[in-house]
Amino acid sequence: MLPLFKQITVCGVGLIGGSLAMVARRAGLADRIVGLGRSEENLKIAVERGIIDQASRDPAEAARGASLVVLATPLRAMPPTMRAMRAALPPDAIVTDVGSVKGWVVEHLEPELGLRMALVAAHPIAGKETTGAGAADAALFTDHRVIITPSARSTPAAIDAVETLWKASDAQVIRMTPAVHDWILARASHLPQIVASGLAAALHDAQIEGLRAADFGAGGLRDTTRIAASSPEMWIDVCLTNRAAIIEALAGFRTMVEEFAGALERSDAEALGRIFERGRALRRGLK
Amino acid sequence: MLPLFKQITVCGVGLIGGSLAMVARRAGLADRIVGLGRSEENLKIAVERGIIDQASRDPAEAARGASLVVLATPLRAMPPTMRAMRAALPPDAIVTDVGSVKGWVVEHLEPELGLRMALVAAHPIAGKETTGAGAADAALFTDHRVIITPSARSTPAAIDAVETLWKASDAQVIRMTPAVHDWILARASHLPQIVASGLAAALHDAQIEGLRAADFGAGGLRDTTRIAASSPEMWIDVCLTNRAAIIEALAGFRTMVEEFAGALERSDAEALGRIFERGRALRRGLK
Repeated sequence: MLPLFKQITVCGVGLIGGSLAMVARRAGLADRIVGLGRSEENLKIAVERGIIDQASRDPAEAARGASLVVLATPLRAMPPTMRAMRAALPPDAIVTDVGSVKGWVVEHLEPELGLRMALVAAHPIAGKETTGAGAADAALFTDHRVIITPSARSTPAAIDAVETLWKASDAQVIRMTPAVHDWILARASHLPQIVASGLAAALHDAQIEGLRAADFGAGGLRDTTRIAASSPEMWIDVCLTNRAAIIEALAGFRTMVEEFAGALERSDAEALGRIFERGRALRRGLK
Repeated sequence: MLPLFKQITVCGVGLIGGSLAMVARRAGLADRIVGLGRSEENLKIAVERGIIDQASRDPAEAARGASLVVLATPLRAMPPTMRAMRAALPPDAIVTDVGSVKGWVVEHLEPELGLRMALVAAHPIAGKETTGAGAADAALFTDHRVIITPSARSTPAAIDAVETLWKASDAQVIRMTPAVHDWILARASHLPQIVASGLAAALHDAQIEGLRAADFGAGGLRDTTRIAASSPEMWIDVCLTNRAAIIEALAGFRTMVEEFAGALERSDAEALGRIFERGRALRRGLK
């Protein structure tokens, strides 16, 4: 049996890109895996761990011979990366990505494709505290969801190929439109990040009589702010590329907070209780 | 050596009250421990586990002979419980509590004290997901903080006695005023609860094309909303009894959220980055 891809070129051999390369390797889906990156040190780790066969810091060099390009860079670096690779790519290459915003990716990558290339945008909902090729793990996606968002430039054959790769990761593969994806993720992921970061930022200078308020938090404060430690660069990109959906989701949260503040102002135990009950019902229903 | 207390009466033999009773027992600090409660079933568990020597559902009966009263009921039940016990208490009884708000407790319990009684309000910053006497654990407070808030009706001898009890729990005992305590906890504990519950409540009805947004959350959503599963009754009490401090803390958070929303509206990457950076700095500094 021939492998599905003659060559996979992974752009950004970090936690997600590196883990997907390991999945392709484990399943025998690629003859050869090339890694494109900026950091020589990280690429060296990727080669040493056998995640990639060859490393390059030159987009044209990495593009040559790629039957599948996986864009796993920060979101706003994807279009320029694609632009820098295009001339050197085979004319029928398939392009996919792992970004956490999909409408913007489709809109900005489609104009960069050659006439016979296909785009299959995808988003694995998985992550860890750690980053880099050193943290990559073929089991990262097991039992997680991967959302595929077919668009105008997705051919049935390209969709099949990208879904075959993701199914090899033991993830649950789901299809939806880029717009539905972005609406859902604005609420399930981007809003929680903004709320956690906003809470942590609001506590940054909270001191009284030489005591820092945050030092008196217990597990509740630690859990609620855990993701505030995430990379600001990555989250600026998410905010700017899923801006409209996040503005809408944030408005819903702000309304809820105003409702709570109003109930507190008028000491309305019933109204406070309704919000706490709604929150508890949602939380208890989470798997 | 005589035990510190002839009799400790614990009002509310739940997770916190039960655990403190176990600490007193382990350290040999009480001749006898009486539990006052509403639920016959929970009191039965407390007796069976040896947490208390005697159970009662009658405040006057439980009060008789108590050298130390530990109020571990919901906050707003503390004053009426104290009122129901007072006539039967020894005239020199010491009263303490474990509530997570201190100014209100001091203000509402002091008028209920007999002339020779002392009040030493206290707040152990500890908790678990579980509740009831079945979850009580003498190790619950180990390495946690316990804040003692001396007030007009705290005598030095009573403060010493209550601090001796808490030191036996292997907690770190700290003193501050009720007002400083309430300012700090409004930010370190009450605000995170409101933010987590508000986020979960805002997601309660978020559905699109038959898909529930919250089902697409990963660990970030789960962590950020974990405490939203807490008891609404308990948190209504906290909100109403620490209302002024929470209104102020919530205003600080709302300002931060408005700042973020404004930066997003004008696609201001730098301003978004400043908030994410502040949040990360605070979070990374948490022990």
